[in-house]
Amino acid sequence: MNTRHEKEIVNITDQVEEAVRKSGVKEGIVLVNAMHITSSVFINDEESGLKQDFMKWLEEIAPVRPDYKHHQTGETNADAHLKRTVMGREAVVAVTNGKLDFGPWEQIFYGEFDGQRKKRVLVKVIGD
Amino acid sequence: MNTRHEKEIVNITDQVEEAVRKSGVKEGIVLVNAMHITSSVFINDEESGLKQDFMKWLEEIAPVRPDYKHHQTGETNADAHLKRTVMGREAVVAVTNGKLDFGPWEQIFYGEFDGQRKKRVLVKVIGD
Amino acid sequence: MNTRHEKEIVNITDQVEEAVRKSGVKEGIVLVNAMHITSSVFINDEESGLKQDFMKWLEEIAPVRPDYKHHQTGETNADAHLKRTVMGREAVVAVTNGKLDFGPWEQIFYGEFDGQRKKRVLVKVIGD
Repeated sequence: MNTRHEKEIVNITDQVEEAVRKSGVKEGIVLVNAMHITSSVFINDEESGLKQDFMKWLEEIAPVRPDYKHHQTGETNADAHLKRTVMGREAVVAVTNGKLDFGPWEQIFYGEFDGQRKKRVLVKVIGD
Repeated sequence: MNTRHEKEIVNITDQVEEAVRKSGVKEGIVLVNAMHITSSVFINDEESGLKQDFMKWLEEIAPVRPDYKHHQTGETNADAHLKRTVMGREAVVAVTNGKLDFGPWEQIFYGEFDGQRKKRVLVKVIGD
Repeated sequence: MNTRHEKEIVNITDQVEEAVRKSGVKEGIVLVNAMHITSSVFINDEESGLKQDFMKWLEEIAPVRPDYKHHQTGETNADAHLKRTVMGREAVVAVTNGKLDFGPWEQIFYGEFDGQRKKRVLVKVIGD
């Protein structure tokens, strides 16, 4: 149930749909979460300009800065922890008749804010 | 299980409680989410001043601006996508003894940030 | 299933693991949420510098200010409602083989932003 990603904002809707299909669950929910603390799973619109807007805005409200206390550990990615917090760790989506019960524009994204390492997304389906 | 709303911050606690009651679920959880990507479901306090504070604050940290990339598609609501992200898409609430298992001040709200169109909220109850 | 806390950012991972163990659930999810609207439950890294970074950053984007409308009710904690919104109310975590299904650094925290009173966290485990 893990998916690997490396950078930026990636649409993972198809992989989540596939996991729901394979689970055989018809009525329930699916939890989709980043397994890393500098990345996010969130739901928004598949539009490339909007993805750029998200990244620019995140840099404004949670900027790269040298003076984070976290950097005293040798890390340089405190901003990524903050950006991930704004965007969220997880999405919970209803499963109805075996499908993601989505509104007209909802798509699931993985947002990577500290992207050199392999990353994983957890997909957990529960229900009947 | 859908509810229609048009603008601003609307308390939907009664509708969610009614959906839980109708489901017959006594022990479980309820997922409540906006089905639109420029609106939110979140939990906070029923207090009119606080609702104004939320809206003013969201305008400060995710302002209306002409220069979002998303607007090159003809849209004018990129700020609403950002505001919804801050406030969150969904709430998951425990159901215990057939009721929403809430702290003393918790209430569920629908927040509309791009409000001309009819909007829907999904309520999914799972459990026994 | 309640835990009491009074201030700042507290690691509650052990208490949540204990609740999952006691529930006997092997496959499912656990919902962990603040029961108060000026506090948060969120998942990040156990690192003291990062906790200070979170608090400093929250003060920058959701500052203490005298002029919030909410303060006309006699309250003085509107900033805490905003800070809690940024950090989130709840975390939903997969339970697999009876354990929290976590990535390498994920830990669960309770964040208190208005801390004089006793506070509670709700832990709800569902599954088989």
